[in-house]
Amino acid sequence: MKKIINAPDKVIQDMIEGMRLASPDIRILPGTSVIVRADAPVKGKVGLISGGGSGHEPAHGGFVGTGMLDAACAGDVFTSPSVDQMMEAVRAVDSGQGVLIIAKNYTGDNLNFDMAMELLADEGIRTEKVVVHDDIAVEESPNTTGRRGVAGTVLVQKVAAACAEQGNDLETVKRAAQDAADHVRTFGFALSPCTIPSVGKPSFSLAEDEMELGTGIHGEAGVKRMKVPGARALAEQMTEAILKDMPVESGEEVCVLVNGMGATPLMELYIIYKEVHSLLTERGIKIAKAYVGEYMTSLEMAGASVSVMKLDEKRKQYLLAPADTLGFKQFASKQSEV
Amino acid sequence: MKKIINAPDKVIQDMIEGMRLASPDIRILPGTSVIVRADAPVKGKVGLISGGGSGHEPAHGGFVGTGMLDAACAGDVFTSPSVDQMMEAVRAVDSGQGVLIIAKNYTGDNLNFDMAMELLADEGIRTEKVVVHDDIAVEESPNTTGRRGVAGTVLVQKVAAACAEQGNDLETVKRAAQDAADHVRTFGFALSPCTIPSVGKPSFSLAEDEMELGTGIHGEAGVKRMKVPGARALAEQMTEAILKDMPVESGEEVCVLVNGMGATPLMELYIIYKEVHSLLTERGIKIAKAYVGEYMTSLEMAGASVSVMKLDEKRKQYLLAPADTLGFKQFASKQSEV
Repeated sequence: MKKIINAPDKVIQDMIEGMRLASPDIRILPGTSVIVRADAPVKGKVGLISGGGSGHEPAHGGFVGTGMLDAACAGDVFTSPSVDQMMEAVRAVDSGQGVLIIAKNYTGDNLNFDMAMELLADEGIRTEKVVVHDDIAVEESPNTTGRRGVAGTVLVQKVAAACAEQGNDLETVKRAAQDAADHVRTFGFALSPCTIPSVGKPSFSLAEDEMELGTGIHGEAGVKRMKVPGARALAEQMTEAILKDMPVESGEEVCVLVNGMGATPLMELYIIYKEVHSLLTERGIKIAKAYVGEYMTSLEMAGASVSVMKLDEKRKQYLLAPADTLGFKQFASKQSEV
Repeated sequence: MKKIINAPDKVIQDMIEGMRLASPDIRILPGTSVIVRADAPVKGKVGLISGGGSGHEPAHGGFVGTGMLDAACAGDVFTSPSVDQMMEAVRAVDSGQGVLIIAKNYTGDNLNFDMAMELLADEGIRTEKVVVHDDIAVEESPNTTGRRGVAGTVLVQKVAAACAEQGNDLETVKRAAQDAADHVRTFGFALSPCTIPSVGKPSFSLAEDEMELGTGIHGEAGVKRMKVPGARALAEQMTEAILKDMPVESGEEVCVLVNGMGATPLMELYIIYKEVHSLLTERGIKIAKAYVGEYMTSLEMAGASVSVMKLDEKRKQYLLAPADTLGFKQFASKQSEV
């Protein structure tokens, strides 16, 4: 295992300490690995938290800040945060307006978030939860009932956060998040595995000319292994699968996220995006906004995913709102319709 | 070779087309691989361009936009752009105030930029050039006379760009860039090689437990090979080498850039940053601003570099100025002194 770390059991604390030292806008709740907006709780605003196993950076700790999350719970690598951490996160960001939890669909995360919500209700803290299951590659997986939650979660967080920043109440923010979750689909692939520091060896193996279609963000098995195709052919497979699952009519607007899993060069992500853009515009679909980069990674896995979110005026407005966090910065009114 | 591309000879055009389609703020000069601010030439502003071989994305095409570059010439992978491309870039961004070229120190880039400058002078276009040679690992390399220019170049571009945005003249912008270049040092390492698409096989090899200290951003040989140390020990070697080359007194301020080469997880970059931060603050050095992420990559190389720029009030002010490009976004007045 080639990793620049101090020790496998120190990676989370070392990492979040590094994040804190890189930004004056976040702090860490003492004794936890919960990253919180420095100005939390934000008066009059619904709190927004997320979390899950680490190893997906910048998700989710890198998204804490203005226009995105109020807090993120960082579990061990690919392991759910504890119920206690989730409760601490919620308490730290609740300004009295309640807190929305956005979870990727993984069984461990969901069980713990549900238990935290029950216990918080006893304390009189209102919470709601929206679960994202955007990954259309598989219907079930060893760690999931139903579809997995992957990179599309970032877009759901962005929409919900903008809704919350505008002063809407918990029900409205939840509705916006659920609406965003209902309109996003993702399909990914892997060219190489990744290595969990405490395990020390790769989670699976692929032949020199082989890739896997539909791999999950923890290296969970996908739908098939195949020779590495050209960018156009691969973009076609992913885009068509997404549009089959979520039809988008000519004239409708979407947001596209081409997300790198960790080791795939930005060069290739932009090449994939070019092909996805071409495939969508050939169908008359308008791309109102595109994100190309690393948002939801899997340590040093090589691979990427394509997410498409259908937009209406409201989702579009929320997506285009500004955000200023370590891993997601966006000035207002930027859009890339072309 | 596992790469998601259409063909090795199409990667540059496909990539820059993808970048253009992802941002309404840039355009490509027809028939070239020159990326230009959509609003260039910006009236009354000194133009700022850079360029070099591709494969270092987001450098430099991803830095074209407000608060950073006016144009970037994208050569083939790890290959200098042509004289023609450089001339086209300068012509496209010159508003009559002249154009500053910021080059990484590589022989090919410099020869071509120099020739372009001579030919542009005949057309009556004023240009100046600042060469960055921040890499302290080696004094000479096969592609360089003197030290190589690497990730610190991004900080020099940021400083020069902010100076230009404020309406300063060509001489002043050049002085700001030279001053920034004089105060930045970088030291890097590699854990794995990268593969140039047209070559199809890795540029060098490393044993399973081995890393190379001082590797260049094209995989040029570094100073030594060694077992992979802990993050603290590695940060110490790099930080001490930098401070030996450029002494920084207790109480002085610096900017730190921990730059990922391509395949190293953000998790490890933040762990490295935590150690660098600790080593600097133990010496009483203040970190006014930190950047942790991928700014100057080497395709899918695993590894990272640490850059330190000494700050005075002016350099600090320029660094903290806003910028809005694909690969470098920064809101105003953000600083992370801790």
